[in-house]
This record gives sequence, C-alpha cells and structure tokens, in this order.
Amino acid sequence: MRSVEQHLEQVLSAVPTPDSIELAVLDAQGLLCAEQVTSSRALPGFDQAALDGYAVRSADIAGSSPERPVELSVVGESLPGPAEPASIGPGLAHRVAAGAMLPTGADVVVPAVWTDQGAARVGVHADLAPGSYVRRAGDDLAPGDQAVGVGTPIGPAQISLLAAMGRDRVLVRPRPRVVVLCAGPELVDVGTVPSPGQVVDVNSYALAAAARDAGAEAYRAGIVPGDRRRLVELLESQLLRSDVLLLAGTFASGGFDLVQEALAELGTVQFTQVAMHPGSVQAFGRLGRDQVPIICVPGEPVAALVAFEVFVRPAIRMMLGKRQLFRRTVQAVAAETLLSPLGYRQYLHGSVMRHPDGGYVVEPVGTEHEAMLARMARSNCLIVIDEDVTEVSAGGLVTVVPMLIGS
Amino acid sequence: MRSVEQHLEQVLSAVPTPDSIELAVLDAQGLLCAEQVTSSRALPGFDQAALDGYAVRSADIAGSSPERPVELSVVGESLPGPAEPASIGPGLAHRVAAGAMLPTGADVVVPAVWTDQGAARVGVHADLAPGSYVRRAGDDLAPGDQAVGVGTPIGPAQISLLAAMGRDRVLVRPRPRVVVLCAGPELVDVGTVPSPGQVVDVNSYALAAAARDAGAEAYRAGIVPGDRRRLVELLESQLLRSDVLLLAGTFASGGFDLVQEALAELGTVQFTQVAMHPGSVQAFGRLGRDQVPIICVPGEPVAALVAFEVFVRPAIRMMLGKRQLFRRTVQAVAAETLLSPLGYRQYLHGSVMRHPDGGYVVEPVGTEHEAMLARMARSNCLIVIDEDVTEVSAGGLVTVVPMLIGS
Repeated sequence: MRSVEQHLEQVLSAVPTPDSIELAVLDAQGLLCAEQVTSSRALPGFDQAALDGYAVRSADIAGSSPERPVELSVVGESLPGPAEPASIGPGLAHRVAAGAMLPTGADVVVPAVWTDQGAARVGVHADLAPGSYVRRAGDDLAPGDQAVGVGTPIGPAQISLLAAMGRDRVLVRPRPRVVVLCAGPELVDVGTVPSPGQVVDVNSYALAAAARDAGAEAYRAGIVPGDRRRLVELLESQLLRSDVLLLAGTFASGGFDLVQEALAELGTVQFTQVAMHPGSVQAFGRLGRDQVPIICVPGEPVAALVAFEVFVRPAIRMMLGKRQLFRRTVQAVAAETLLSPLGYRQYLHGSVMRHPDGGYVVEPVGTEHEAMLARMARSNCLIVIDEDVTEVSAGGLVTVVPMLIGS
Repeated sequence: MRSVEQHLEQVLSAVPTPDSIELAVLDAQGLLCAEQVTSSRALPGFDQAALDGYAVRSADIAGSSPERPVELSVVGESLPGPAEPASIGPGLAHRVAAGAMLPTGADVVVPAVWTDQGAARVGVHADLAPGSYVRRAGDDLAPGDQAVGVGTPIGPAQISLLAAMGRDRVLVRPRPRVVVLCAGPELVDVGTVPSPGQVVDVNSYALAAAARDAGAEAYRAGIVPGDRRRLVELLESQLLRSDVLLLAGTFASGGFDLVQEALAELGTVQFTQVAMHPGSVQAFGRLGRDQVPIICVPGEPVAALVAFEVFVRPAIRMMLGKRQLFRRTVQAVAAETLLSPLGYRQYLHGSVMRHPDGGYVVEPVGTEHEAMLARMARSNCLIVIDEDVTEVSAGGLVTVVPMLIGS
C-alpha cells in the first residue's frame, strides 16, 4: 500500500507539459502567458490631452490666478481621431477634448474648469507645470518595454494591453485535453431507467464537469463498450486527442478483466492500493505510442470525485502551468467527534462556516460515516483526517479544504 | 452630479431577470438551479454491497470472533451489474463485490479481511450488526426527497446527483447575454496599425473578457459604424440578442452626437456625471421595444474597466441570480501616501500583498496618479478611497478589492 503523497507524486511526475499555442486574445482568457511580450509600439502612440480643456504653452500661463487670469486667443479645436497636426505659438490656445492630439507647441492642457471656457478668447486662471494633463507618447509603455511576462494569467487588463499593442494573438499554455471514460457492466446512460443491479453513469458527467472546472478542455466519452476489440479501438482513437485519459470504474473485482486486458494491450497501467478513504484502489499508467498518461479513479461516485480532487485536479493545474497546484486549506473546529480508520487518510464531505468568534467550524454532512451523493451535493468542503489519527474530538482542530462553486 | 451608489442603484433596479432555461447538465455547470429538483427514484436504486466481501445473515455470525470463527457455505458470487436475484438461507454466504446486488435473505456484508476468504466455505471472524456494509435502496435519497434546491450553484457534485436521478437537463438561471460595442472616430481595430490620432479599440476585447469573467455570455460587436443609419441598424439587430448592451466611448465631447442621436432614436439614455475617478461620465438607458438596458462606460480603457467593475459586474451577477453581487473587500495598510480628489470616489490600481505581521499592505502601481494600461496589467487590486477623503497617510488603512485572475 502506498501513501497519498506517493501516488500523487507518480501522477505529477508523469503528466506532460502540453506545447504552448497561439490563441486569439479572447480565447486566451484565464490561461497563462507563455511568451515574453514586449511592445513594438509606444503607448500612448502620440501626445494627447488627458482631459477636456485648452492646450496652451505653460510659459504663457505662468503666474495666472483667479485674480490675475491670462487671456489667450483660441485658434482651433481638436477632437479625438486622426487629424492634420495642429500647432500653436505664443499667446495662443487650442481647445482639446480628452484623447485628442496635442498641438505642437503646447505643453500643458488646462482643464476647462480652470478657465472661463471662452470660445474665441479664453481666460486661464491656473498656473500649471509643463506636462500637466498631457499624456506623452510612450508614457505608459515605450517600444521594447516588457508588457506581459511568461506565466502571467491573461485577464481583462492583460487583454486590454495586448490589444493596445496590436496583438490579436498571444502564446499561452493551453487547456489540457482530458477525455473522461467510465467502465462497468452495471452502468447505463442517464437516459435509461436502470433495472435492478444497474446504475446510471454519473461519473462521466461529474468528472467532465470537475475537469472543466479545474481548467481542462474536457471531453465526455461516456461508458466504454463491453467488447474488448471495440474498447481498444475507442481508447486508441481517444489517445489521439488526449493529454490525459481519465477512467472511472471498479477495477478491483474480477469482472473487469476486460478493461484491464484492453489497457494492457495498449500500455502499462499499475493498479495500486492507496492509503486513503474513500477509494483506496487507484491506478496510473501510460498508453499508446505517445505514452499518454491515464489516471484511473474508483467507480463509486463519491470516491471518484475525491480522487479527482486529490490526484487529477493538481495534475490539470500543473499542465496549465499554475504555481498553486492545490486549493488553500483552513483549520476548523470540529463541531462533532470524527472517526477515521487508522493508516488511511480520510476525506469526509463537510459543511464549513465562519465561527462568530472568528475562525471556522466544520461538521460532516449526513449522519453516517459514509458520504453519499445527496450528502456530497450539500457539502461545501472536504475534511481531511491524517493517516495516524483515528478520532478527532468535538472541539478539536481539523484540516478543511473549502470547495465553493459559486456564491 | 450623482453618487456612485445612486448610479449603481439605477443600473441594478433596471436590469432584467432573464427567463430560466433548461440546459443539459454539463452546460448548466456554474449556473444557479432555478427549480426545486425532487427525486423520482430511490438512490441507491437497490440494496447493494458497500464493499467486497461475503453477504451473510447477521444472525448466523452472532458471537463469531477470530478465536471462534463461524463457517458458512458459499453458494454463489455476485458482481456489479444486472443479474437474476440471488438469495441465501441460514448457514449460507454469497460472495459479493462492492456495488453488487445484495442477495435476499442477507442483511450484512462481511468485509473480506474479516474472513478466511474461502471459496467453497468461508470462515467469518467478526460479529457485525445488521445492515453493516450494506447500502439500502433509498439510503441516499428516497423518492420525493428534495435533491437540489432553487438557487443552488450547479457543480460537479450536483451534476453527479442530477445524473443519478436520471436528469440530463435542469432548469437554471441562464448566463445573461451582453453585447459589447465601442464608439469613437479615433478607434481602429486591433489588426490596423494606428496613425497619429488613432487608437486601437481595446475596450471591446477587455470588456467582453470582463463580462465573460463575471459570468455573462459576451458578444464582441466591436467598433460601431460612423454612419447614423447603419449604427441604428446595428443597434436594432444587437438588441434582439441582448439582455444588456454595453457601450464604451467618449460621449461627453461634441464629436459623438452621432452616437447620442442614434441612441435617442431607439430609446432614452441618460448621460450623467458620477462622483468617481477615473471616469465620471457614465450613462444608462433603455432601448427598443423590449426596453433593453444599455450601460455606457467611458472610452478611456482604464476608466472603462473600473466602470465595468463598479456597475456592470454587479448587474451581471444579479442577472445570474447570485446573492453576492460584489467582490469581497479587505482593509489594507497603505505603503505610501495616497491622494484623492475631494468629492469623488477614487479607484486606484494597486498591488496588495499579505503583510508578514498579518493583514495586508497595498501600494499603488506606477509612479503617477494616473493608472494606465501597463500599470493596470501589473495590478492585482483596486484601492477605493471615499469621496470625503483627500489623503490617506502612509500606514493608514484603505479599502482594497482584490481582483485575482488566476494564480
């Protein structure tokens, strides 16, 4: 039996780094930049007014004040947009709107509120330093400046900056492609009413959702065929479009030799006991010419999502290039006594909330030790109890992984 | 001039509640459930073994122990999947795999580790209470039980539960459809190298990304035509597929009467001064027969994203049905003196980090008072300085809105 850490290490050490790809900036949203983007342009691209007012020469308004305004002749008006270059000489002013080109000769924009807002002549009653309310070309970014670095998450602000530099595409770490398959003779698709002994395949839906939530491009391939030849063909075709295969099923029992045989035909998959509860049977291997990793998780739906959380989500985040592979944890006070099998790390679904006196308090959902589907759906966290702990007393501290999915 | 709260209130009081729609469960991911889902089935659907072992009658193993094991005859084996109902009588055992149907007559499953794992006869050395390691039909959910309530976010666990109940579709609050448009004679699309006076349209990209990040279905309609007839036609066609129109541009200046005229032809849009910096010119109105709300934000890209954050993101979250409309804020120590115009609520882009002694410390990005694109892209928060504050001393507390986009 291996520890959770040992199995996780095997998975993480084997997941590939998908090649970076160039995407349209909007499609890059949420991904990590994979290139050092430097600007080939100055930003702003030209000297411009930062707000509505009058472009003037600072020398002309030196010493002006409400008591001693300076009068200037207004010789033109500039709006945003391309225009013939304007210019002003001594004693002249040019009306400008925010974003309009600054006339040559002007070195300051006087906000309209500090003038009498005249049309032909304007009285200015503020003495402003050169450069006031002017955005100079390159103030934001000069050609050659680094704009977006490797590893930067692409969000609205980065998209704004990239577009400003004329970049409609950017090299990013892509979403890893995860194909989700489920195996088991008891499984029927969601559209079928199960007979006794049959169970609806929930894992291909839940794991695809979880994979997508973790940042993957998830493909739900559904229930695998019960015929070995067709199963091998399906796996071969899915390998072509996968960075990782994710297979949920109950492999420990004798009845699933079919799946294990098909896997053995395509590569090496090692089934192991991992010291965790629920779901101690886990597997990892590589299939096909490209040695695509395959992660097998238990078929029991609660155990499947726990295994996803513990092994698959960190692997997806690693492929995305994220630095934080794991969710943050908090320490919470247990509201009731929690029991745990010795030698196994136990994951219990719980409900965590802020304690009025500060900190957090957590209680397991449901009344029995075994969390099931309806209980899991009411939970908002996983409670993690270490291998060497068999009992956490009410009032004791436990590690909790909040798993909020929207609020 | 109105306050930020007054403008926000106008926007929030006018946004529509899009009709709930039925979506495939995987497409419902991240949305809020809009129906009271009750189960029409029992979950599990049949009595089953919770783990691998032997199904027996609890009466037969009463008093058994490692010292005094009980011997039973093994009369069959059940694997998961549909099967003829098996049954056992006194003195008999049935080998079962986890998930297999429990034979009638049996009321307990003895884990294999507490037996001698015999094939024809099995020695049991554990005395277990009736029901041990058995999942009874309906243990998780009985027919008629509420499974997923109105307002519950649909995540992997909810998808798992819905699928188990045979639900491949669920009624949810849909993503609001937000069409993003930009106006201004200075604008050119990202593929064009701007001439002096021209500026690349970054807002249609950045706002579409921000709207999508907030949970909307965002459509980037791009730069609006400079011809009034064509502009009205464009707006009319976009109104048909919008829950909200989002228009960025510089509307205060005289040159944009074209846009204001087109808006007036289709409805009522009120341009107002809002006591905020950057971006005091904001607008809100309704257009077309369906009175679709239109939110106008400034054309300056930093002001546009600030206005999005303050007015549009809460509106999108309200349409999604979220209870938390606003990001959480933290109080942080200002690393340097911050200045703010009296009477205006100021939003500064900053960099917030945890302080080694606890709490947070924040510093504005960039060296000047005006945050620009490259600076905004380096920031991870907005610093909010209230209207009546003109200076926050270094070491003083300020309100900070962390805006992490991935880590």
